[in-house]
Amino acid sequence: MKQSHLFTKTKKEAPADEVAKNAELLIKAGFINKEMAGVYSYLPLGLRVINKIQNIIREEMNAIGGQEVTLTALQEKATWEPTNQWDDAEVDVWFKTKLKNETELGLAVTHEAAMTKMLKSFVESYRDLPVNIYQFQTKFRNETRAKSGIMRTREFIMKDLYSFSKDEAEHNEFYEKAKEAYKNVFKRAGIGHLTYLTFASGGMFSKFSHEFQTITSAGEDIIYVDESKGIAINKEVYNDEVIANLGLSKETLVENRAVEVGNIFTLATRFSDALNLKYKTETGEEKSVFMGSYGIGPGRLMGTVVEVLSDDKGIIWPESIAPFKVHILELGDDMEVKTTANALYATLQSKGIEVMYDDRTGMSAGEKFADADLIGIPYRVVISPRSLKDGGYEVKKRTEGKGKIVNIDELTEILNG
Amino acid sequence: MKQSHLFTKTKKEAPADEVAKNAELLIKAGFINKEMAGVYSYLPLGLRVINKIQNIIREEMNAIGGQEVTLTALQEKATWEPTNQWDDAEVDVWFKTKLKNETELGLAVTHEAAMTKMLKSFVESYRDLPVNIYQFQTKFRNETRAKSGIMRTREFIMKDLYSFSKDEAEHNEFYEKAKEAYKNVFKRAGIGHLTYLTFASGGMFSKFSHEFQTITSAGEDIIYVDESKGIAINKEVYNDEVIANLGLSKETLVENRAVEVGNIFTLATRFSDALNLKYKTETGEEKSVFMGSYGIGPGRLMGTVVEVLSDDKGIIWPESIAPFKVHILELGDDMEVKTTANALYATLQSKGIEVMYDDRTGMSAGEKFADADLIGIPYRVVISPRSLKDGGYEVKKRTEGKGKIVNIDELTEILNG
Repeated sequence: MKQSHLFTKTKKEAPADEVAKNAELLIKAGFINKEMAGVYSYLPLGLRVINKIQNIIREEMNAIGGQEVTLTALQEKATWEPTNQWDDAEVDVWFKTKLKNETELGLAVTHEAAMTKMLKSFVESYRDLPVNIYQFQTKFRNETRAKSGIMRTREFIMKDLYSFSKDEAEHNEFYEKAKEAYKNVFKRAGIGHLTYLTFASGGMFSKFSHEFQTITSAGEDIIYVDESKGIAINKEVYNDEVIANLGLSKETLVENRAVEVGNIFTLATRFSDALNLKYKTETGEEKSVFMGSYGIGPGRLMGTVVEVLSDDKGIIWPESIAPFKVHILELGDDMEVKTTANALYATLQSKGIEVMYDDRTGMSAGEKFADADLIGIPYRVVISPRSLKDGGYEVKKRTEGKGKIVNIDELTEILNG
Repeated sequence: MKQSHLFTKTKKEAPADEVAKNAELLIKAGFINKEMAGVYSYLPLGLRVINKIQNIIREEMNAIGGQEVTLTALQEKATWEPTNQWDDAEVDVWFKTKLKNETELGLAVTHEAAMTKMLKSFVESYRDLPVNIYQFQTKFRNETRAKSGIMRTREFIMKDLYSFSKDEAEHNEFYEKAKEAYKNVFKRAGIGHLTYLTFASGGMFSKFSHEFQTITSAGEDIIYVDESKGIAINKEVYNDEVIANLGLSKETLVENRAVEVGNIFTLATRFSDALNLKYKTETGEEKSVFMGSYGIGPGRLMGTVVEVLSDDKGIIWPESIAPFKVHILELGDDMEVKTTANALYATLQSKGIEVMYDDRTGMSAGEKFADADLIGIPYRVVISPRSLKDGGYEVKKRTEGKGKIVNIDELTEILNG
């Protein structure tokens, strides 16, 4: 994409009321727009990132047999009542609204019940199970405080997968697969080294649930990390019994602030019992389907990446989710510079490499460098009278301090690598 | 995809309260699920179709320079007040809700105002224009009646593009391009031959708006079509003056029932004036940005395709938006049949052809044929003891009455064509 075509520009300041680093950087760099507290739009660069994150998640969910659907945000009271979730005392983040005829509707905060209800018309016997269904769908949550940028918002896309198994054993098998798929997601998104499988409160249905917590000072949770074993305990269940239970020791556990980037949860038969999702076993017995739920918020993941992978100049995108792989900077009005930059842009694009080309005129080199650092594309290639005199292109990774001059073959090799 | 893996099944009946043909067929074939009146979820097959429709639209919008974003459904009162749209008397399809602190919010019914407001921080001078921005975003509309299946719903994805031009001349240039892009969309989606550029009421800002109306008895509009010129007039502006104005004649205009599958609209400076979206001209003069809006509902388009391209056996998807290109039907438990079907499935997939493979056991040939017809995949390939004895594969288009036996080379040629 030519940067002269992009309608967004970098900004000197984020809105005065913005306190989260992730939103500040993303707004300044033109990835998102703040509609109001806790509500953000995705602009072209931000949409590219969120789509890449979603595609990584989609690939991992498909790999473990997930089938993709999209349920609706509008949901009837009747869907929520059997599990007592309609009650504001039980679910405290409702946005509710009404049809013209005064029928109350809720904007779904989650979809266990809706998914269970939908599946009733497709599941009859053991032959129809297991089934694992997921979606990328907009959740609405009426958060009282919304001060964490895109890490906690009132409207956001959630990837939520629900597993429907014949029994606990079959459930556990899938649950372990989902654990690995989740690890893959965070690794591929560039925060695997900071993300820990964390034992947390399991609610009524299992001893623990599992969270994936990424260490960052911007997090809302406290976890205790055993670095050598690569696991952690959430403060909410951190006690002597649990520590012993997991074979850990207080001495090796280090307290950290962290953000929950994903969670997986055994629901057992809470929803299938309440909503009557049953199947016939091989022997003709009627049994409730055994369920699990598995969530990741792509926006929260994006915000977390910005929190942990950025410096005082701006964002540092991992290549896997960067809006573009290469940022070409054309400096000055020299005709040879323009011709060379244009040719490189065409060449890289023809090789399927995603490029943003800063072809803007009337800007100083310093302004272009500052914009490139703020936006955070992994590779920067400068073409200037000096680089041409020195023999070609100055290439630099966003993570590196200094670039080096290379010729076109060396450049192609670096960018293909 | 192996059909044994797909969690949906075909159904004998749609819900008793369902009156629209499109929803009946789509529910019976397992493409959508009805959450409540006017609210439908997309199941795996339906999601594949809607994604293909969206990709066609995306390609056409990108081709005319559109930049993709995603705004939010939650919007503040302040965004709507300057154009008087917050008032229920002005906009009669609001779903409204509230923050915990009682602040009223609206679920956006459209995004002209939000888009205009967002763009204010990026447009300063004539150099920043023109800009064309679009999104695929969920709209909520509190429709009183919702009896047209997925053609008129209370929650739906809308592709809405907004154009921001320096003046009317620049606007008109883009408007004509958008017209062509829209024609391409409907042509590519398989309903070009039934879709007419229709002159409709232009509101305050221009003589006419332009609708794209597809002829179907399920439509809510009445249009008068001049077949030879390929244009139509909406009943709302059908009078002697307009007919003369457009150089048409009553004798050649034929009344038809039709559904509006798209519309394009000149907004002029209504929103930019009200929300103060100005730019500086080359001579330093301050001017309001000149705007247009361009909408297509992918769900309505999908519903329209089902209404106009179906027969008494089921849906007939155009190849461009079909969930799969080929439906392999394996008949009987014969080992050679299974081996041959499996091999064909692998071969076609390796060629990048999208295949659904009916590998289900314990079903009669009749049941498989009926399901295939209902689901409506363009090519059906039957592998049975008889087809093998006769020399190979029985291939049939969904639009054809009878299949023919071909060998693997002939089959490959047909499916690559």
